[in-house]
Amino acid sequence: MREIHVIGIGAGDPEHLTLQAVRLMRSTDVFFVLDKGEVKSDLTDLRREMLRTHIPEGSYRVVEARDPERDRTAGSAAYSPAVGDWRSARADIYERLIAEELGEDESGAFLVWGDPSLYDSTIAILDEVLARGNVAFAYDVVPGVSSVSALVARHRTGLNRVARPVQITTGRRLAEGFPEGVDDVVVMLDAHQAFRAHTDDDVDIYWGAYLGTPDEILVSGPIAEAAPRIEELRAEARERKGWIMDTYLLRRRP
Amino acid sequence: MREIHVIGIGAGDPEHLTLQAVRLMRSTDVFFVLDKGEVKSDLTDLRREMLRTHIPEGSYRVVEARDPERDRTAGSAAYSPAVGDWRSARADIYERLIAEELGEDESGAFLVWGDPSLYDSTIAILDEVLARGNVAFAYDVVPGVSSVSALVARHRTGLNRVARPVQITTGRRLAEGFPEGVDDVVVMLDAHQAFRAHTDDDVDIYWGAYLGTPDEILVSGPIAEAAPRIEELRAEARERKGWIMDTYLLRRRP
Ligand SMILES: C[S@@+](CC[C@H](N)C(=O)[O-])C[C@H]1O[C@@H](n2cnc3c(N)ncnc32)[C@H](O)[C@@H]1O
Ligand SMILES: C[S@@+](CC[C@H](N)C(=O)[O-])C[C@H]1O[C@@H](n2cnc3c(N)ncnc32)[C@H](O)[C@@H]1O
Repeated sequence: MREIHVIGIGAGDPEHLTLQAVRLMRSTDVFFVLDKGEVKSDLTDLRREMLRTHIPEGSYRVVEARDPERDRTAGSAAYSPAVGDWRSARADIYERLIAEELGEDESGAFLVWGDPSLYDSTIAILDEVLARGNVAFAYDVVPGVSSVSALVARHRTGLNRVARPVQITTGRRLAEGFPEGVDDVVVMLDAHQAFRAHTDDDVDIYWGAYLGTPDEILVSGPIAEAAPRIEELRAEARERKGWIMDTYLLRRRP
Repeated sequence: MREIHVIGIGAGDPEHLTLQAVRLMRSTDVFFVLDKGEVKSDLTDLRREMLRTHIPEGSYRVVEARDPERDRTAGSAAYSPAVGDWRSARADIYERLIAEELGEDESGAFLVWGDPSLYDSTIAILDEVLARGNVAFAYDVVPGVSSVSALVARHRTGLNRVARPVQITTGRRLAEGFPEGVDDVVVMLDAHQAFRAHTDDDVDIYWGAYLGTPDEILVSGPIAEAAPRIEELRAEARERKGWIMDTYLLRRRP
C-alpha cells in the first residue's frame, strides 16, 4: 500500500523541523514539491535545502509540479467557490502524481509550510483524492511549528492572556470588524493590511514578516505608533524581495 | 550575563522536539524543573528522559523546585486574582532559582509543555522577575508543537475551514456558551467536560487525551454520539492513571 506523510516543516526556520519530521523524511522515497510560480520559489528552495541537509543524496526523488493558479479576481462573494474549483484542480494533480510517480510499496511526502492545520489545504485535497477512489493510499499528518507560534515566540509573548480566548483569522475577516468576544486576535493571509482600520483602537500589535528567515522583520507597540512603521517596512521589503509573508497579533488593552 | 531559554518541548511525544530545542538543550548548563506534585510526575519524567536521550551525561545540572499550589477553591469570580497571587509566588521561586542556581555566565532553561504561547505562564513570570530588577538575565523563547496541533494532526483534520476563523478557549469559557462568530473552537483546560452542554447542537467533536504518549486516546464524530463514549473513556483513564490531559475541537456543521 502506498504511504503518504503530510509533514509540517515550520514556517521559515529550518531548525523548526521536528525530530519526527526528519525521521520520516529519511524514510521517504518521493517528495512532491508544488511550485506556485516565481514569487514563491524561495520557499521551494528552502524545502530542497532541508532535503539536502537531512537526507543522504541519491536516496530520494523529488517530483515537481505546477500548482494551478487560484482565481482571486472574482472578488469576495466568489471566494469560496473559486477555492472549491481550485481544490479540485489540485486534487487532479495530486491524484496523478500519486498514481504515476509513487510505486505501490513506496512512501511519499508533502512538505507543508508551518503546521498543516492552519490555512493549508493538503489534508482536504488528499481526502478528496481518496474519496474519488481511483488510487489507494494511507496517509498521516506530522504537526509542525506554525508561523503563529514563531511570531509570538520572537516577540516573547503569549497567544492568549490568562484564562482568556484567542482567535486566529484572516485579513479578509478582520476587514469586516474586530471579532466578537475576544481581545486577542491573530491575523494571517492579509494582503491589504486590515490592521489599519484599528489604529484608533486601544490595541497593541505584534507584527512579523519572513519569520524565521534571514529577512525576518519584527515590529510591536501601540498600533497608532506601530502601524505607519509597519506599512513602510512592509512596502519596502515587498518591493525588494518581490513577495512578502507576514502575520500579526492584535491585543486589545483591558 | 545569565541567559535563559524558554523551550517548547511538544505536548507528550518526545519526537515533537525541534532541532532548535535539541541544539539549545545541548548548550544549557542548568535545567529548572518545577514539579506540580504527585499527579504530574509523569510529565516531569518525560522531561528527564528527554535530557537523558539528547545530552551527554554529566554536562548539565537539574534543579528541581516545588510549584506553589494554585488556589482553585475560590470559584469563578476569584479566578483571576488567584492566578495573580500564584504568579507572584512563582516569580519569587524563579527569581531565587536564577539568582542562586545559575552562575553569572551560565545558561539555564525551562522546558515548557507544548508551545510556550498557549496557556503557559513562564514568559509572564520571567517578565515579572526582570521587572523587579533583583537579578539580570537575557531570555529567548523557542516555539514548540502545541497539543492543539498534535490533536488535529492525529485526527487528520485542519484547525479552521477555508478562509474561516478558529478560536482557542478554555472549558470555563465554553461553559458560558458557544463563542460568537466562529464555528471552529478548540477547548483546553476543561476539567468539567463543558462539551456536554452542546450534545444537541449540530456539532462534530474531535477529542484527544494524553496526545503523543503511549496512553493516547482519540474519539471523533457527531457530538451526540461521541460525547457518552468520551465521558466513559475519560473517567476510566483518569481513574487508572490518576490524572488526565485532554483537549478537543468542536466544529459546527454549516
Ligand atoms: C496559507 S497560510 C499557511 C500557514 C502555515 N500553515 C502556518 O502554519 O504558518 C500563509 C500565511 O501564513 C503566514 N505566514 C506563514 N509563514 C510566515 C512567515 N515565515 N512569516 C510571517 N508570516 C507567515 C502569513 O500570514 C501567510 O499569509
Ligand atoms: C496549561 S495548558 C498548556 C498547553 C501547552 N502549552 C500546549 O501548547 O499544549 C494544559 C492544557 O493543554 C492541553 N494538553 C496539553 N498536553 C496535552 C496532551 N498531551 N493531550 C491532550 N491535551 C493536552 C489540555 O487541554 C491541558 O488542560
